[in-house]
Amino acid sequence: MGLTVAQKILKEHLVDGSLTEGDEIGIKIDQTLTQDATGTMADLQFEQMGTPRVKTEVSVSYIDHKTIQMGFEDADDHTYLQTFAKKYGLYLSKAGNGICHQVHVERFGKPGKTLLGSDSHTPTGGGIGMIAIGAGGLDVASAMAGMPFYMPRPKIVGIKLTGKLNPWVSAKDIILKVLQILTTKGNVGWIAEYFGDGVKHLSVPERATITNMGAELGVTTSVFPSDETTRSFLKAQKREQDWISLEVDPDAVYDKVIEINLNELEPMIAQPHSPDNVVRVRDVEGTPADQVMVGSCTNSSYKDGKILAEILKGKVANENVSFGYAPGSKQVLRMLSDEGKLSHIIAAGARILESACGFCIGAGQAPRNNAVSIRTNNRNFFGRSGTTTAKIYLVSPETAAACALTGKITDPRDLEKLFGIQYPKVDVPSEFTIDDSLIIPPAHETGMSKVELYKGPNIVDPPGGSSMPADLIGEVTGKFGDKITTDDIMPAGDLLKYRSNVPKYAEYVFVKRDPTFAQRCLENKKMGIHNIIVGGDSYGQGSSREHAALCPMYLGVKAVIAKAIERIHRANLINFGILPLTFKNPDDYEKIDQGDRIKLPNIRKALIENKGEVMLYNETKGISIPLNYHLTEREVKTILAGGTMKLAKDFPGKSFKEIVFNS
Amino acid sequence: MGLTVAQKILKEHLVDGSLTEGDEIGIKIDQTLTQDATGTMADLQFEQMGTPRVKTEVSVSYIDHKTIQMGFEDADDHTYLQTFAKKYGLYLSKAGNGICHQVHVERFGKPGKTLLGSDSHTPTGGGIGMIAIGAGGLDVASAMAGMPFYMPRPKIVGIKLTGKLNPWVSAKDIILKVLQILTTKGNVGWIAEYFGDGVKHLSVPERATITNMGAELGVTTSVFPSDETTRSFLKAQKREQDWISLEVDPDAVYDKVIEINLNELEPMIAQPHSPDNVVRVRDVEGTPADQVMVGSCTNSSYKDGKILAEILKGKVANENVSFGYAPGSKQVLRMLSDEGKLSHIIAAGARILESACGFCIGAGQAPRNNAVSIRTNNRNFFGRSGTTTAKIYLVSPETAAACALTGKITDPRDLEKLFGIQYPKVDVPSEFTIDDSLIIPPAHETGMSKVELYKGPNIVDPPGGSSMPADLIGEVTGKFGDKITTDDIMPAGDLLKYRSNVPKYAEYVFVKRDPTFAQRCLENKKMGIHNIIVGGDSYGQGSSREHAALCPMYLGVKAVIAKAIERIHRANLINFGILPLTFKNPDDYEKIDQGDRIKLPNIRKALIENKGEVMLYNETKGISIPLNYHLTEREVKTILAGGTMKLAKDFPGKSFKEIVFNS
Repeated sequence: MGLTVAQKILKEHLVDGSLTEGDEIGIKIDQTLTQDATGTMADLQFEQMGTPRVKTEVSVSYIDHKTIQMGFEDADDHTYLQTFAKKYGLYLSKAGNGICHQVHVERFGKPGKTLLGSDSHTPTGGGIGMIAIGAGGLDVASAMAGMPFYMPRPKIVGIKLTGKLNPWVSAKDIILKVLQILTTKGNVGWIAEYFGDGVKHLSVPERATITNMGAELGVTTSVFPSDETTRSFLKAQKREQDWISLEVDPDAVYDKVIEINLNELEPMIAQPHSPDNVVRVRDVEGTPADQVMVGSCTNSSYKDGKILAEILKGKVANENVSFGYAPGSKQVLRMLSDEGKLSHIIAAGARILESACGFCIGAGQAPRNNAVSIRTNNRNFFGRSGTTTAKIYLVSPETAAACALTGKITDPRDLEKLFGIQYPKVDVPSEFTIDDSLIIPPAHETGMSKVELYKGPNIVDPPGGSSMPADLIGEVTGKFGDKITTDDIMPAGDLLKYRSNVPKYAEYVFVKRDPTFAQRCLENKKMGIHNIIVGGDSYGQGSSREHAALCPMYLGVKAVIAKAIERIHRANLINFGILPLTFKNPDDYEKIDQGDRIKLPNIRKALIENKGEVMLYNETKGISIPLNYHLTEREVKTILAGGTMKLAKDFPGKSFKEIVFNS
Repeated sequence: MGLTVAQKILKEHLVDGSLTEGDEIGIKIDQTLTQDATGTMADLQFEQMGTPRVKTEVSVSYIDHKTIQMGFEDADDHTYLQTFAKKYGLYLSKAGNGICHQVHVERFGKPGKTLLGSDSHTPTGGGIGMIAIGAGGLDVASAMAGMPFYMPRPKIVGIKLTGKLNPWVSAKDIILKVLQILTTKGNVGWIAEYFGDGVKHLSVPERATITNMGAELGVTTSVFPSDETTRSFLKAQKREQDWISLEVDPDAVYDKVIEINLNELEPMIAQPHSPDNVVRVRDVEGTPADQVMVGSCTNSSYKDGKILAEILKGKVANENVSFGYAPGSKQVLRMLSDEGKLSHIIAAGARILESACGFCIGAGQAPRNNAVSIRTNNRNFFGRSGTTTAKIYLVSPETAAACALTGKITDPRDLEKLFGIQYPKVDVPSEFTIDDSLIIPPAHETGMSKVELYKGPNIVDPPGGSSMPADLIGEVTGKFGDKITTDDIMPAGDLLKYRSNVPKYAEYVFVKRDPTFAQRCLENKKMGIHNIIVGGDSYGQGSSREHAALCPMYLGVKAVIAKAIERIHRANLINFGILPLTFKNPDDYEKIDQGDRIKLPNIRKALIENKGEVMLYNETKGISIPLNYHLTEREVKTILAGGTMKLAKDFPGKSFKEIVFNS
């Protein structure tokens, strides 16, 4: 049987498991990317792994998230990242060089390679024919150290594109349509693979817009074939040698197929507060717009910027709109500037913002209360813009330009009628301007040891984990209800500045729910008593923030018992040596209270035998409660060791299959 | 006797007092400017004055300070400012249009006119031959309502410039030299007027750099003549009709003269932490630089940007430098972009930051700990950058460019030797690109009433003052030591977001020194007991923040008694109806304690008689303490009424001379 593009790449990189059976697979990682919000901790963790130089083909450290720099913490982190990259063999993309995903596609991505990135929009690389996956910082650090990445064995949904986009309809409208069909739920563990005749009409940046926002589907990644279009793009980036052909076999079989006819697609818009709340722009046209923002890793390519410029040429944005444009990279900014296109955007009244993540992550440009904000980025979650009452709509650059000019939600197809604007046909240029002067290469092997790491006072070495004891004896230090989010566990906002300082950040675990939780944990830890968290349903939902496991680990939390634990948080708990357990009978949730002394006798032995069941004894109440768990062999060993870091440290150079634990 | 340029303008605008005798003069204000950090409160105060439309020739509301927009407060304020401007007859310069002082010189400033601005660098307008003065927001609101501005009768220091600047030496070096000579102290009440043969070689933007940073001297303002150079500049801005000739009379006499020979001037640098800590760049060359920032109202003109671009052309900044450039206005950005100059700056690795105040006011770009940051702005006060351990140096754009290229403090004259860079001779263009699309004109008279003001939940009408009672009976609610700054009284930082919400902001009065002060004041206020603050020496030093008087007024503070009160804070106290008193015998400071009940019997009558002395009776201690005050007739009336706003409200349309108070 033939293979799909995703299967071909995965097969080539498979180091553990099988593509046809089993729960999870392990794959070799060729490239990594980190960004400054997650990268500092990833780098600190890498340091502790004792590997003298990254073992990937290419690892790039990007500075694009916290470029505003309020207070010393960010600039301190940036300097640390720069010295780390130099010392350990990474490229460093400085602040101002652009958004990691945009720059990575331009300058580093290669068809057929695997990319692991500590950012959920890493799948952007799928536009150039990579298997590109977002993961926690520790997973990326492990990949930098040469370890495989483990993921659920994927099922593949084939998304067949037929026909060709009409004028004023763009790649963003395709992915919005896909989101309308597949929604943001139920796609966990899937890979989305695009195929069909429609693909060949889409340039690499357009494909990257689609794979980027695949993250909102919840799939593991999205991928396009690598074809002549890919070759042309790489040639224009003076990287033709990085190209390989990679197409789906004629007899390959997808686990599921959906089809979109591009001829029939219209401009689409995602309404507040979910990327899958998608309707046609026509359906909501006329709503007054207060803010229009173009940019973000979804729509900040040269093509996006040039289309924007051509539409705006000679026109001025509506006076009631706060209109901003952030180019995706230095390459984009420079080319638009060189070619006089930037002048059109400036003249139209756009605020020219730094080439960085900015407004998309709530780093500036918070709209006014109750504002309607039209944006080209990928997420319109409640409150993400920085203004909880604001209503964020997601659109293409074409639609954004139309809204900026009219001051209301406008189908861009009306621009001809309204302003006499012809649809500007913009192709990918045959030659991009190559200027990597803000990308700092690593030191040569001989000079590495001489590089001194800079660490400001906010950078503290991350704590190590401790192995699982024979019997787990502890206290229920905190009991919480249903739907506890990672933001409940580890609040972000201003506190995010402590991301590189676990002892400090850990003081705020559960601070909004239970202000003395952290303090009680530390007191127990001092006396050798383990801390146990009890939760209700959907414990750990929300972002992939690994600090929601890392900081509890620092506080001495050894197990979480809940009615159900969300997938990504569960993976993070395991990474940090915290045992995820569920009630066999959900009603038993009522049989444990905060402060109860509990015991999991012979837990170590039980995990080694891995039967999926364990009995908890509530000493305070004098009752036994049956619990379940579901762990792969790798996960069991990770927990026994005390987390991924500890496992790597205790068994340097060994694959997890070679590691044997005795109870 | 002939007149100087300053005297000519003042004479033309004099509505009260005399230029040759007396303490203070009142002048008519032709133009005002406000910016978003101070403007919201100024506009709210103007609303309360009941004037339907600004009475100035031109008033402009600029949005340039808080353009980062973290949280809804800033965007809410921006929208309020925009609707206010439309309704009340002001021009609104939107976020992205640039820094108020740069834009005002380009598009609004006129030789011979007076300009009052709620920003301390308003004297930038002196470069185009205006009397341009920085003041508190309430003073500017009053000027918008047609009231005169009162200031100490000025003495004039003539600064004679001879010769011509050598290549690589610039206007910034002139004002740094002036700061080295006159220092930041002892210049209060003076006006600096530039004359001599050297003036004619300086373009208007260069003159504006010099008058801008006159603010650091502490003078009331600085002024240049209006000559053929001024005419050319205005012509290039398509405003030749705004030009008048304005030169010093041959027989005019300055109160003091200093002379600078431009032929002998070298590149200068202000070292941490004061703008007058000036040496030659040569004296500190070689110090490694971590950050280089070009921009701010001091050095962000087209000429500054073009010089930067020409120096950087084909070169790349040192990799260890975080290098940023923020153009001063949309005009500057657009022209540099149109002419391909921006591309040189981008290619050299500069981070292109929004055209706004940004790094200069600590709104982003905080350097790392202990960093050496080389900047073209005007202030290098301790901590202002956002990083208390950083060392900020102030230089010209030429020196900044040299530092960016070498990564260390470098005399720009070495660029020829080091990189083969010839000094780029940059002239003011014969034609600027005129594009006012981000400047929104006010509504026509007929449409004004239809404009609806937008006010977000953080915008609260400012409180009114209350008249001085016959006897002032109160409690010493707070007693503080020497050198209390306005930052001690009214902390800024994050709390600045409450600038439009006095009741909320007032909760934080003295919060760092005495956390329950505000609460105690409010309890007293509720019971009709007046609050009195007792301070030591130099009470109220630091910034001109009017909230340090406005918020205490809201708390019911009616008098401040101190060993000495700083000039600007004293003016603010009066504006908000708080009586500034000093101990006749400084030792009496020891005779009052916090919590003491005190009485100023017949204070109203005493003020009307204005004998400068009043007796305080400390009821708690049973002793009398003699106090002094020094108030002009206008100030007495302001305090009797309960502040400037209250005076205007109680006596609409009357000059203060027409107002009569009875005890």
